[in-house]
Amino acid sequence: MQPQINPVREYFITLQDAIVDALESLSGAGQFQSSDLPGPDGTLSRPRVLEDGEHIEKAAVQFTHSRGASLPDAATQRNPHLAGLGFQATAISLIVHPRNPYVPTTHANLRFFLVEADEPFWYFGGGFDMTPYYGFEEDARHWHEQALAATGDHYAKLKAACDDYFYLAHRNERRGIGGIFFDDWQEGGFDESFALTRRVGDHFLPAYRPIFERRVSAPYGERERDWQLYRRGRYAEFNLAIDRGTKYGLQSGRRVESVLASLPPMATWKYDYQPEPGTPEARLYTDFLPPRDWVPSA
Amino acid sequence: MQPQINPVREYFITLQDAIVDALESLSGAGQFQSSDLPGPDGTLSRPRVLEDGEHIEKAAVQFTHSRGASLPDAATQRNPHLAGLGFQATAISLIVHPRNPYVPTTHANLRFFLVEADEPFWYFGGGFDMTPYYGFEEDARHWHEQALAATGDHYAKLKAACDDYFYLAHRNERRGIGGIFFDDWQEGGFDESFALTRRVGDHFLPAYRPIFERRVSAPYGERERDWQLYRRGRYAEFNLAIDRGTKYGLQSGRRVESVLASLPPMATWKYDYQPEPGTPEARLYTDFLPPRDWVPSA
Repeated sequence: MQPQINPVREYFITLQDAIVDALESLSGAGQFQSSDLPGPDGTLSRPRVLEDGEHIEKAAVQFTHSRGASLPDAATQRNPHLAGLGFQATAISLIVHPRNPYVPTTHANLRFFLVEADEPFWYFGGGFDMTPYYGFEEDARHWHEQALAATGDHYAKLKAACDDYFYLAHRNERRGIGGIFFDDWQEGGFDESFALTRRVGDHFLPAYRPIFERRVSAPYGERERDWQLYRRGRYAEFNLAIDRGTKYGLQSGRRVESVLASLPPMATWKYDYQPEPGTPEARLYTDFLPPRDWVPSA
Repeated sequence: MQPQINPVREYFITLQDAIVDALESLSGAGQFQSSDLPGPDGTLSRPRVLEDGEHIEKAAVQFTHSRGASLPDAATQRNPHLAGLGFQATAISLIVHPRNPYVPTTHANLRFFLVEADEPFWYFGGGFDMTPYYGFEEDARHWHEQALAATGDHYAKLKAACDDYFYLAHRNERRGIGGIFFDDWQEGGFDESFALTRRVGDHFLPAYRPIFERRVSAPYGERERDWQLYRRGRYAEFNLAIDRGTKYGLQSGRRVESVLASLPPMATWKYDYQPEPGTPEARLYTDFLPPRDWVPSA
Protein backbone atom coordinates (compact mmCIF):
# COMPACT_ATOMS: atom_id res chain seq x y z
CA MET A 1 0.00 0.00 0.00
CA GLN A 2 1.15 3.57 -0.66
CA PRO A 3 1.62 5.37 2.67
CA GLN A 4 -1.69 7.06 3.48
CA ILE A 5 -2.90 9.07 6.42
CA ASN A 6 -6.51 7.88 6.45
CA PRO A 7 -6.17 4.23 7.47
CA VAL A 8 -3.80 5.23 10.26
CA ARG A 9 -6.11 7.99 11.40
CA GLU A 10 -9.09 5.64 11.41
CA TYR A 11 -7.17 3.04 13.38
CA PHE A 12 -6.08 5.59 16.00
CA ILE A 13 -9.65 6.89 16.40
CA THR A 14 -11.05 3.39 16.81
CA LEU A 15 -8.33 2.56 19.33
CA GLN A 16 -8.98 5.79 21.22
CA ASP A 17 -12.67 4.94 21.54
CA ALA A 18 -11.91 1.40 22.72
CA ILE A 19 -9.42 2.59 25.34
CA VAL A 20 -11.74 5.33 26.58
CA ASP A 21 -14.55 2.77 27.02
CA ALA A 22 -12.27 0.34 28.84
CA LEU A 23 -10.85 2.99 31.17
CA GLU A 24 -14.34 4.28 32.01
CA SER A 25 -15.33 0.81 33.00
CA LEU A 26 -12.13 0.36 35.07
CA SER A 27 -12.58 3.75 36.66
CA GLY A 28 -15.93 2.94 38.32
CA ALA A 29 -17.63 6.29 38.82
CA GLY A 30 -16.20 8.99 36.53
CA GLN A 31 -16.53 9.91 32.87
CA PHE A 32 -14.25 11.33 30.23
CA GLN A 33 -14.82 14.93 29.17
CA SER A 34 -14.99 14.76 25.41
CA SER A 35 -14.72 17.37 22.75
CA ASP A 36 -14.09 17.08 19.03
CA LEU A 37 -12.16 20.05 17.70
CA PRO A 38 -12.02 20.07 13.91
CA GLY A 39 -9.22 22.14 12.40
CA PRO A 40 -8.54 23.40 8.89
CA ASP A 41 -8.21 20.99 5.92
CA GLY A 42 -9.84 18.03 7.59
CA THR A 43 -7.57 18.00 10.63
CA LEU A 44 -9.03 16.96 13.96
CA SER A 45 -8.24 16.95 17.63
CA ARG A 46 -10.20 14.73 20.06
CA PRO A 47 -9.17 15.40 23.65
CA ARG A 48 -10.57 12.93 26.20
CA VAL A 49 -9.81 13.60 29.85
CA LEU A 50 -11.21 11.91 32.95
CA GLU A 51 -10.66 13.51 36.35
CA ASP A 52 -11.58 12.40 39.84
CA GLY A 53 -12.93 8.99 38.93
CA GLU A 54 -13.48 6.41 41.64
CA HIS A 55 -10.40 4.35 40.73
CA ILE A 56 -8.74 6.62 38.17
CA GLU A 57 -7.64 9.97 39.50
CA LYS A 58 -6.79 11.28 36.04
CA ALA A 59 -6.56 9.82 32.56
CA ALA A 60 -6.02 11.52 29.24
CA VAL A 61 -6.46 9.76 25.90
CA GLN A 62 -5.73 12.21 23.12
CA PHE A 63 -6.11 11.90 19.37
CA THR A 64 -4.76 14.46 16.92
CA HIS A 65 -4.48 14.74 13.17
CA SER A 66 -2.61 17.87 12.15
CA ARG A 67 -1.03 19.42 9.09
CA GLY A 68 2.06 21.58 8.91
CA ALA A 69 3.10 24.04 6.26
CA SER A 70 6.80 23.29 6.26
CA LEU A 71 8.90 20.34 7.31
CA PRO A 72 11.14 20.34 10.36
CA ASP A 73 14.80 20.87 9.39
CA ALA A 74 15.81 17.41 10.55
CA ALA A 75 13.63 15.83 7.87
CA THR A 76 14.68 18.00 4.93
CA GLN A 77 18.40 17.75 5.70
CA ARG A 78 18.31 14.02 5.16
CA ASN A 79 15.75 14.32 2.33
CA PRO A 80 16.37 17.52 0.38
CA HIS A 81 13.76 16.59 -2.27
CA LEU A 82 11.10 17.23 0.41
CA ALA A 83 12.09 20.84 1.10
CA GLY A 84 9.10 23.17 0.97
CA LEU A 85 6.48 20.43 1.19
CA GLY A 86 3.77 20.31 3.83
CA PHE A 87 3.36 17.35 6.18
CA GLN A 88 0.65 15.55 8.08
CA ALA A 89 0.88 13.88 11.46
CA THR A 90 -1.57 11.80 13.39
CA ALA A 91 -1.14 10.44 16.90
CA ILE A 92 -2.81 8.88 19.88
CA SER A 93 -1.29 9.53 23.27
CA LEU A 94 -2.56 8.35 26.60
CA ILE A 95 -1.75 8.38 30.25
CA VAL A 96 -3.49 6.86 33.28
CA HIS A 97 -2.92 8.04 36.85
CA PRO A 98 -4.84 5.58 39.05
CA ARG A 99 -5.88 6.44 42.58
CA ASN A 100 -4.70 3.28 44.34
CA PRO A 101 -0.90 3.44 44.79
CA TYR A 102 -0.65 -0.27 44.05
CA VAL A 103 -1.94 0.29 40.52
CA PRO A 104 0.82 1.52 38.22
CA THR A 105 0.66 4.65 36.12
CA THR A 106 0.92 3.91 32.43
CA HIS A 107 1.63 5.81 29.23
CA ALA A 108 1.24 4.84 25.58
CA ASN A 109 1.71 6.70 22.36
CA LEU A 110 1.47 5.91 18.65
CA ARG A 111 2.22 8.34 15.85
CA PHE A 112 2.54 8.54 12.10
CA PHE A 113 4.23 11.27 10.08
CA LEU A 114 3.73 11.67 6.34
CA VAL A 115 4.90 13.91 3.53
CA GLU A 116 3.00 13.19 0.33
CA ALA A 117 5.38 13.41 -2.64
CA ASP A 118 6.37 11.32 -5.65
CA GLU A 119 8.65 9.57 -3.26
CA PRO A 120 6.73 9.93 0.00
CA PHE A 121 8.52 10.38 3.31
CA TRP A 122 6.93 8.79 6.37
CA TYR A 123 7.61 7.07 9.64
CA PHE A 124 5.83 5.52 12.58
CA GLY A 125 6.71 5.81 16.23
CA GLY A 126 5.31 4.94 19.61
CA GLY A 127 5.23 2.37 22.37
CA PHE A 128 3.95 1.80 25.88
CA ASP A 129 5.61 1.92 29.27
CA MET A 130 4.58 1.40 32.88
CA THR A 131 5.47 3.26 36.07
CA PRO A 132 4.66 1.34 39.25
CA TYR A 133 4.87 2.85 42.73
CA TYR A 134 5.22 -0.62 44.24
CA GLY A 135 6.88 -3.34 42.21
CA PHE A 136 5.36 -6.77 41.61
CA GLU A 137 7.32 -9.28 39.57
CA GLU A 138 4.24 -10.96 38.14
CA ASP A 139 2.96 -7.60 36.89
CA ALA A 140 6.28 -6.70 35.29
CA ARG A 141 6.48 -10.11 33.61
CA HIS A 142 2.93 -9.88 32.31
CA TRP A 143 3.55 -6.36 30.98
CA HIS A 144 6.67 -7.38 29.12
CA GLU A 145 5.14 -10.65 27.87
CA GLN A 146 2.48 -8.55 26.18
CA ALA A 147 5.13 -6.19 24.83
CA LEU A 148 6.96 -9.21 23.42
CA ALA A 149 3.75 -10.58 21.90
CA ALA A 150 3.17 -7.21 20.22
CA THR A 151 6.64 -6.75 18.79
CA GLY A 152 8.08 -10.25 18.32
CA ASP A 153 11.58 -10.19 16.88
CA HIS A 154 11.83 -6.45 17.47
CA TYR A 155 11.19 -6.76 21.22
CA ALA A 156 14.79 -6.74 22.50
CA LYS A 157 15.68 -3.62 20.54
CA LEU A 158 12.45 -1.79 21.38
CA LYS A 159 12.68 -2.75 25.05
CA ALA A 160 16.21 -1.34 25.23
CA ALA A 161 15.09 1.84 23.44
CA CYS A 162 12.33 2.27 26.05
CA ASP A 163 14.78 1.87 28.94
CA ASP A 164 17.00 4.48 27.27
CA TYR A 165 14.26 6.99 26.61
CA PHE A 166 12.46 7.01 29.97
CA TYR A 167 15.56 7.93 31.90
CA LEU A 168 16.04 10.79 34.37
CA ALA A 169 19.75 11.44 33.90
CA HIS A 170 19.81 14.01 36.72
CA ARG A 171 18.77 11.23 39.13
CA ASN A 172 20.39 8.32 37.28
CA GLU A 173 17.01 6.64 37.52
CA ARG A 174 14.55 5.09 35.06
CA ARG A 175 11.00 6.41 35.10
CA GLY A 176 9.48 2.98 35.57
CA ILE A 177 9.84 -0.63 34.46
CA GLY A 178 9.80 0.32 30.77
CA GLY A 179 8.08 -1.48 27.95
CA ILE A 180 8.67 -0.74 24.28
CA PHE A 181 9.58 2.39 22.34
CA PHE A 182 10.17 2.93 18.62
CA ASP A 183 10.73 6.00 16.49
CA ASP A 184 11.55 6.91 12.86
CA TRP A 185 10.22 3.44 12.06
CA GLN A 186 9.98 2.39 8.41
CA GLU A 187 11.10 -1.23 8.69
CA GLY A 188 9.60 -3.52 6.05
CA GLY A 189 7.79 -0.62 4.40
CA PHE A 190 4.46 1.03 5.18
CA ASP A 191 2.32 -2.11 5.45
CA GLU A 192 4.62 -3.89 7.87
CA SER A 193 5.30 -0.77 9.92
CA PHE A 194 1.59 -0.01 10.18
CA ALA A 195 0.95 -3.63 11.19
CA LEU A 196 3.54 -3.37 13.97
CA THR A 197 1.96 -0.12 15.13
CA ARG A 198 -1.46 -1.81 15.25
CA ARG A 199 -0.10 -4.77 17.17
CA VAL A 200 1.35 -2.40 19.76
CA GLY A 201 -1.95 -0.50 19.99
CA ASP A 202 -3.98 -3.71 20.23
CA HIS A 203 -1.80 -5.09 23.02
CA PHE A 204 -2.10 -2.07 25.29
CA LEU A 205 -5.34 -3.07 27.01
CA PRO A 206 -4.42 -6.76 27.36
CA ALA A 207 -1.16 -5.60 28.94
CA TYR A 208 -2.59 -3.03 31.36
CA ARG A 209 -6.11 -4.14 32.30
CA PRO A 210 -5.23 -7.36 34.18
CA ILE A 211 -2.67 -5.49 36.28
CA PHE A 212 -5.17 -2.75 37.06
CA GLU A 213 -7.83 -5.29 38.05
CA ARG A 214 -5.41 -7.32 40.17
CA ARG A 215 -4.34 -4.29 42.27
CA VAL A 216 -7.28 -1.92 42.33
CA SER A 217 -8.83 -3.29 45.52
CA ALA A 218 -5.62 -3.61 47.51
CA PRO A 219 -6.00 -1.77 50.83
CA TYR A 220 -3.68 1.20 51.31
CA GLY A 221 -3.18 4.08 53.71
CA GLU A 222 -1.40 7.38 54.14
CA ARG A 223 2.05 5.84 53.77
CA GLU A 224 1.30 4.40 50.34
CA ARG A 225 -0.47 7.58 49.22
CA ASP A 226 2.48 9.74 50.32
CA TRP A 227 4.87 7.54 48.41
CA GLN A 228 2.70 7.66 45.29
CA LEU A 229 2.55 11.47 45.43
CA TYR A 230 6.31 11.68 45.95
CA ARG A 231 7.04 9.37 43.03
CA ARG A 232 4.62 11.34 40.87
CA GLY A 233 7.01 14.25 41.33
CA ARG A 234 9.47 12.24 39.23
CA TYR A 235 6.81 11.87 36.59
CA ALA A 236 6.36 15.65 36.45
CA GLU A 237 10.14 16.08 36.30
CA PHE A 238 10.39 13.73 33.36
CA ASN A 239 7.48 15.20 31.43
CA LEU A 240 8.40 18.84 31.96
CA ALA A 241 12.18 18.72 31.87
CA ILE A 242 13.00 15.78 29.60
CA ASP A 243 10.20 14.41 27.40
CA ARG A 244 10.71 15.39 23.76
CA GLY A 245 7.00 15.14 22.96
CA THR A 246 6.06 17.59 25.70
CA LYS A 247 8.88 19.95 24.72
CA TYR A 248 7.84 19.88 21.07
CA GLY A 249 4.19 20.33 22.02
CA LEU A 250 4.91 23.38 24.17
CA GLN A 251 7.23 24.98 21.63
CA SER A 252 5.03 24.34 18.62
CA GLY A 253 2.09 26.12 20.18
CA ARG A 254 -0.15 23.05 20.41
CA ARG A 255 -3.14 23.39 22.75
CA VAL A 256 -1.37 23.57 26.11
CA GLU A 257 -4.09 21.83 28.14
CA SER A 258 -3.80 18.82 25.83
CA VAL A 259 -0.01 18.76 25.94
CA LEU A 260 0.07 18.99 29.74
CA ALA A 261 -2.88 16.68 30.38
CA SER A 262 -0.23 14.02 31.05
CA LEU A 263 0.84 15.72 34.28
CA PRO A 264 -0.17 14.02 37.50
CA PRO A 265 -3.27 15.37 39.25
CA MET A 266 -1.21 15.91 42.40
CA ALA A 267 2.49 15.52 43.19
CA THR A 268 4.85 16.28 46.04
CA TRP A 269 8.55 16.99 46.43
CA LYS A 270 10.47 16.24 49.62
CA TYR A 271 14.00 17.37 50.16
CA ASP A 272 16.69 14.69 50.14
CA TYR A 273 14.22 11.92 50.81
CA GLN A 274 15.19 8.25 50.72
CA PRO A 275 12.94 5.33 51.66
CA GLU A 276 14.12 3.05 54.47
CA PRO A 277 16.30 0.23 53.13
CA GLY A 278 14.45 -3.06 52.84
CA THR A 279 10.97 -1.55 52.60
CA PRO A 280 8.71 -2.12 49.58
CA GLU A 281 9.38 1.52 48.65
CA ALA A 282 13.15 0.96 48.62
CA ARG A 283 12.71 -2.23 46.60
CA LEU A 284 11.26 -0.15 43.78
CA TYR A 285 14.71 1.43 43.40
CA THR A 286 16.75 -1.71 43.90
CA ASP A 287 14.64 -4.36 42.16
CA PHE A 288 12.39 -2.66 39.61
CA LEU A 289 13.74 0.59 38.20
CA PRO A 290 17.13 -0.72 37.06
CA PRO A 291 16.55 -2.30 33.62
CA ARG A 292 15.93 -6.05 33.83
CA ASP A 293 15.15 -8.82 31.38
CA TRP A 294 11.58 -9.55 32.37
CA VAL A 295 10.94 -12.14 29.68
CA PRO A 296 13.20 -14.32 27.58
CA SER A 297 13.27 -12.37 24.32
CA ALA A 298 14.23 -15.36 22.18
CA MET B 1 39.03 47.00 43.66
CA GLN B 2 40.22 44.13 41.49
CA PRO B 3 37.39 41.63 41.05
CA GLN B 4 37.73 39.05 43.85
CA ILE B 5 35.68 36.06 44.87
CA ASN B 6 36.19 36.33 48.63
CA PRO B 7 34.31 39.51 49.49
CA VAL B 8 31.37 38.34 47.39
CA ARG B 9 31.44 34.91 48.95
CA GLU B 10 31.55 36.41 52.45
CA TYR B 11 28.63 38.71 51.67
CA PHE B 12 26.54 35.84 50.31
CA ILE B 13 27.24 33.68 53.38
CA THR B 14 26.33 36.51 55.76
CA LEU B 15 23.16 37.19 53.80
CA GLN B 16 22.26 33.51 53.78
CA ASP B 17 22.58 33.35 57.58
CA ALA B 18 20.46 36.48 58.02
CA ILE B 19 17.71 35.21 55.73
CA VAL B 20 17.70 31.76 57.34
CA ASP B 21 17.29 33.38 60.78
CA ALA B 22 14.50 35.65 59.58
CA LEU B 23 12.62 32.85 57.85
CA GLU B 24 12.89 30.60 60.90
CA SER B 25 11.34 33.31 62.98
CA LEU B 26 8.57 33.90 60.39
CA SER B 27 7.95 30.18 60.11
CA GLY B 28 6.93 29.70 63.75
CA ALA B 29 7.63 26.04 64.49
CA GLY B 30 10.11 24.52 62.03
CA GLN B 31 13.86 24.61 61.53
CA PHE B 32 16.20 24.56 58.59
CA GLN B 33 18.17 21.39 57.93
CA SER B 34 21.73 22.58 57.58
CA SER B 35 24.79 20.97 56.18
CA ASP B 36 28.10 22.42 55.10
CA LEU B 37 29.63 20.50 52.25
CA PRO B 38 33.20 21.60 51.53
CA GLY B 39 34.49 20.76 48.07
CA PRO B 40 37.97 20.73 46.53
CA ASP B 41 40.13 23.88 46.44
CA GLY B 42 38.21 25.80 49.08
CA THR B 43 34.83 25.47 47.40
CA LEU B 44 31.76 25.16 49.58
CA SER B 45 28.10 24.32 49.40
CA ARG B 46 25.73 25.24 52.23
CA PRO B 47 22.26 23.83 51.62
CA ARG B 48 19.57 25.06 54.02
CA VAL B 49 16.11 23.60 53.67
CA LEU B 50 13.10 23.96 55.93
CA GLU B 51 10.12 21.64 55.48
CA ASP B 52 6.76 21.46 57.19
CA GLY B 53 7.13 24.58 59.28
CA GLU B 54 4.08 26.08 60.96
CA HIS B 55 3.77 28.97 58.48
CA ILE B 56 6.35 27.96 55.88
CA GLU B 57 5.63 24.74 54.09
CA LYS B 58 9.03 24.70 52.41
CA ALA B 59 11.94 27.10 52.08
CA ALA B 60 15.36 26.59 50.57
CA VAL B 61 18.21 29.06 50.99
CA GLN B 62 21.25 27.74 49.18
CA PHE B 63 24.80 29.00 49.06
CA THR B 64 27.43 27.63 46.69
CA HIS B 65 30.98 28.49 45.79
CA SER B 66 32.25 26.33 42.96
CA ARG B 67 35.17 26.12 40.55
CA GLY B 68 35.13 24.88 36.99
CA ALA B 69 37.97 23.58 34.91
CA SER B 70 36.99 25.15 31.61
CA LEU B 71 34.87 28.09 30.61
CA PRO B 72 31.49 27.74 28.93
CA ASP B 73 31.72 28.39 25.16
CA ALA B 74 29.59 31.51 25.38
CA ALA B 75 32.25 33.23 27.47
CA THR B 76 35.30 32.31 25.43
CA GLN B 77 33.72 33.17 22.08
CA ARG B 78 33.39 36.76 23.15
CA ASN B 79 36.69 36.69 25.06
CA PRO B 80 39.16 34.41 23.27
CA HIS B 81 42.01 35.41 25.62
CA LEU B 82 40.20 33.43 28.35
CA ALA B 83 40.17 30.10 26.52
CA GLY B 84 41.47 27.28 28.66
CA LEU B 85 41.22 29.16 31.96
CA GLY B 86 39.30 27.91 34.96
CA PHE B 87 36.48 29.88 36.54
CA GLN B 88 34.86 30.38 39.91
CA ALA B 89 31.22 31.03 40.68
CA THR B 90 29.44 31.85 43.88
CA ALA B 91 25.72 32.22 44.39
CA ILE B 92 22.90 32.44 46.86
CA SER B 93 19.51 31.23 45.75
CA LEU B 94 16.35 31.08 47.79
CA ILE B 95 12.72 30.20 47.56
CA VAL B 96 9.89 30.36 50.10
CA HIS B 97 6.65 28.39 49.76
CA PRO B 98 4.43 29.60 52.62
CA ARG B 99 1.52 27.54 53.88
CA ASN B 100 -1.15 30.26 53.93
CA PRO B 101 -2.37 30.86 50.34
CA TYR B 102 -2.60 34.59 51.06
CA VAL B 103 1.16 34.77 51.58
CA PRO B 104 3.02 34.91 48.26
CA THR B 105 5.77 32.57 47.22
CA THR B 106 9.04 34.38 46.63
CA HIS B 107 12.33 33.68 44.95
CA ALA B 108 15.66 35.52 45.03
CA ASN B 109 19.04 34.81 43.58
CA LEU B 110 22.42 36.53 43.47
CA ARG B 111 25.47 35.24 41.65
CA PHE B 112 29.00 36.20 40.72
CA PHE B 113 31.16 34.63 38.05
CA LEU B 114 34.91 35.20 37.82
CA VAL B 115 37.84 34.21 35.66
CA GLU B 116 41.13 35.33 37.17
CA ALA B 117 43.46 36.53 34.41
CA ASP B 118 45.60 39.57 33.61
CA GLU B 119 42.42 41.05 32.29
CA PRO B 120 39.85 39.32 34.51
CA PHE B 121 36.43 38.38 33.21
CA TRP B 122 33.51 38.60 35.60
CA TYR B 123 29.86 39.45 35.94
CA PHE B 124 27.11 39.65 38.53
CA GLY B 125 23.53 38.54 38.17
CA GLY B 126 20.43 38.08 40.26
CA GLY B 127 17.25 39.67 41.45
CA PHE B 128 14.07 38.89 43.37
CA ASP B 129 10.52 38.21 42.28
CA MET B 130 7.20 37.43 43.93
CA THR B 131 4.43 35.00 43.04
CA PRO B 132 1.15 35.70 44.84
CA TYR B 133 -1.84 33.36 44.74
CA TYR B 134 -4.15 36.23 45.62
CA GLY B 135 -3.24 39.72 44.49
CA PHE B 136 -3.12 42.73 46.81
CA GLU B 137 -2.22 46.11 45.35
CA GLU B 138 -0.58 47.35 48.53
CA ASP B 139 1.66 44.27 48.60
CA ALA B 140 2.66 44.68 44.97
CA ARG B 141 3.40 48.37 45.49
CA HIS B 142 5.48 47.70 48.58
CA TRP B 143 7.42 44.95 46.82
CA HIS B 144 8.25 47.14 43.87
CA GLU B 145 9.01 50.18 46.04
CA GLN B 146 11.69 48.10 47.73
CA ALA B 147 12.92 46.91 44.33
CA LEU B 148 13.16 50.54 43.25
CA ALA B 149 14.96 51.49 46.44
CA ALA B 150 17.49 48.72 45.79
CA THR B 151 18.19 49.50 42.16
CA GLY B 152 17.49 53.23 41.70
CA ASP B 153 18.09 54.38 38.13
CA HIS B 154 18.37 50.80 36.96
CA TYR B 155 14.89 49.89 38.22
CA ALA B 156 12.88 50.33 35.00
CA LYS B 157 15.26 48.20 32.97
CA LEU B 158 15.62 45.50 35.65
CA LYS B 159 11.87 45.40 36.26
CA ALA B 160 11.26 44.86 32.54
CA ALA B 161 13.94 42.14 32.43
CA CYS B 162 12.18 40.38 35.32
CA ASP B 163 8.81 40.50 33.54
CA ASP B 164 10.52 39.05 30.46
CA TYR B 165 12.33 36.28 32.25
CA PHE B 166 9.56 34.88 34.46
CA TYR B 167 7.27 34.20 31.55
CA LEU B 168 5.49 30.96 30.66
CA ALA B 169 5.28 31.34 26.87
CA HIS B 170 3.19 28.15 26.52
CA ARG B 171 0.51 29.82 28.64
CA ASN B 172 1.21 33.42 27.66
CA GLU B 173 1.34 34.14 31.37
CA ARG B 174 3.83 35.71 33.79
CA ARG B 175 4.89 33.62 36.77
CA GLY B 176 3.97 36.34 39.24
CA ILE B 177 4.09 40.09 39.76
CA GLY B 178 7.80 40.25 38.98
CA GLY B 179 10.43 42.34 40.70
CA ILE B 180 13.95 42.81 39.37
CA PHE B 181 16.31 40.65 37.33
CA PHE B 182 19.83 41.35 36.08
CA ASP B 183 22.43 39.22 34.33
CA ASP B 184 25.89 39.60 32.75
CA TRP B 185 26.13 42.73 34.88
CA GLN B 186 29.40 44.71 34.85
CA GLU B 187 28.04 48.23 34.85
CA GLY B 188 30.33 50.78 36.51
CA GLY B 189 32.99 48.14 37.17
CA PHE B 190 33.38 45.60 39.96
CA ASP B 191 32.86 47.96 42.93
CA GLU B 192 29.63 49.44 41.62
CA SER B 193 28.27 46.13 40.40
CA PHE B 194 29.02 44.49 43.75
CA ALA B 195 27.36 47.42 45.52
CA LEU B 196 24.22 47.00 43.42
CA THR B 197 24.23 43.27 44.17
CA ARG B 198 24.48 44.01 47.91
CA ARG B 199 21.66 46.54 47.74
CA VAL B 200 19.45 43.94 46.10
CA GLY B 201 20.39 41.35 48.71
CA ASP B 202 19.87 43.78 51.58
CA HIS B 203 16.41 44.78 50.33
CA PHE B 204 15.05 41.26 50.10
CA LEU B 205 13.91 40.94 53.72
CA PRO B 206 12.51 44.49 53.94
CA ALA B 207 10.56 43.72 50.77
CA TYR B 208 9.19 40.31 51.76
CA ARG B 209 8.82 40.26 55.53
CA PRO B 210 6.08 42.92 55.89
CA ILE B 211 3.96 41.18 53.25
CA PHE B 212 4.43 37.83 54.96
CA GLU B 213 3.49 39.30 58.35
CA ARG B 214 0.46 41.13 56.95
CA ARG B 215 -1.07 37.98 55.39
CA VAL B 216 0.09 35.07 57.52
CA SER B 217 -2.91 35.11 59.87
CA ALA B 218 -5.59 35.56 57.21
CA PRO B 219 -8.20 32.82 57.55
CA TYR B 220 -8.49 30.47 54.59
CA GLY B 221 -10.18 27.21 53.67
CA GLU B 222 -10.20 24.44 51.10
CA ARG B 223 -10.98 26.78 48.22
CA GLU B 224 -7.89 28.91 48.81
CA ARG B 225 -5.71 25.86 49.44
CA ASP B 226 -6.88 24.23 46.20
CA TRP B 227 -6.13 27.40 44.28
CA GLN B 228 -2.66 27.65 45.80
CA LEU B 229 -1.86 24.03 44.90
CA TYR B 230 -3.14 24.56 41.37
CA ARG B 231 -1.07 27.72 40.89
CA ARG B 232 1.97 25.94 42.30
CA GLY B 233 1.68 23.65 39.28
CA ARG B 234 2.66 26.69 37.20
CA TYR B 235 5.68 27.16 39.43
CA ALA B 236 6.79 23.58 38.77
CA GLU B 237 6.21 24.10 35.03
CA PHE B 238 8.38 27.18 35.03
CA ASN B 239 11.18 25.68 37.09
CA LEU B 240 11.35 22.36 35.27
CA ALA B 241 10.57 23.38 31.69
CA ILE B 242 11.85 26.95 31.42
CA ASP B 243 14.21 28.20 34.11
CA ARG B 244 17.78 28.44 32.83
CA GLY B 245 19.29 28.04 36.29
CA THR B 246 17.49 24.74 36.88
CA LYS B 247 18.34 23.49 33.40
CA TYR B 248 22.00 24.38 33.88
CA GLY B 249 22.01 22.83 37.34
CA LEU B 250 20.55 19.54 36.11
CA GLN B 251 22.81 19.31 33.07
CA SER B 252 25.99 20.26 34.89
CA GLY B 253 25.56 17.46 37.40
CA ARG B 254 25.15 19.72 40.45
CA ARG B 255 23.66 18.02 43.51
CA VAL B 256 20.14 17.33 42.30
CA GLU B 257 18.41 17.74 45.67
CA SER B 258 19.82 21.28 45.91
CA VAL B 259 18.87 22.19 42.34
CA LEU B 260 15.32 20.92 42.77
CA ALA B 261 14.82 22.20 46.32
CA SER B 262 12.96 25.09 44.66
CA LEU B 263 10.08 22.85 43.65
CA PRO B 264 6.84 23.28 45.57
CA PRO B 265 6.19 20.81 48.39
CA MET B 266 2.87 19.89 46.75
CA ALA B 267 1.23 20.90 43.48
CA THR B 268 -1.82 19.93 41.45
CA TRP B 269 -2.83 20.02 37.80
CA LYS B 270 -6.44 20.25 36.69
CA TYR B 271 -7.46 19.87 33.09
CA ASP B 272 -8.65 23.00 31.29
CA TYR B 273 -9.41 24.81 34.53
CA GLN B 274 -10.41 28.47 34.63
CA PRO B 275 -11.47 30.39 37.73
CA GLU B 276 -14.94 31.98 37.69
CA PRO B 277 -14.80 35.49 36.21
CA GLY B 278 -14.91 38.21 38.83
CA THR B 279 -13.54 36.06 41.68
CA PRO B 280 -10.33 36.91 43.52
CA GLU B 281 -8.74 33.94 41.73
CA ALA B 282 -9.68 35.36 38.31
CA ARG B 283 -8.42 38.80 39.31
CA LEU B 284 -4.93 37.35 39.69
CA TYR B 285 -4.95 36.78 35.91
CA THR B 286 -6.63 40.02 34.95
CA ASP B 287 -5.13 42.50 37.42
CA PHE B 288 -1.83 41.13 38.70
CA LEU B 289 -0.02 38.80 36.30
CA PRO B 290 0.01 41.12 33.27
CA PRO B 291 3.02 43.44 33.77
CA ARG B 292 2.07 46.74 35.44
CA ASP B 293 3.91 49.83 36.58
CA TRP B 294 3.58 49.37 40.32
CA VAL B 295 5.67 52.40 41.26
CA PRO B 296 6.60 55.54 39.39
CA SER B 297 10.12 54.76 38.27
CA ALA B 298 11.23 58.42 38.23
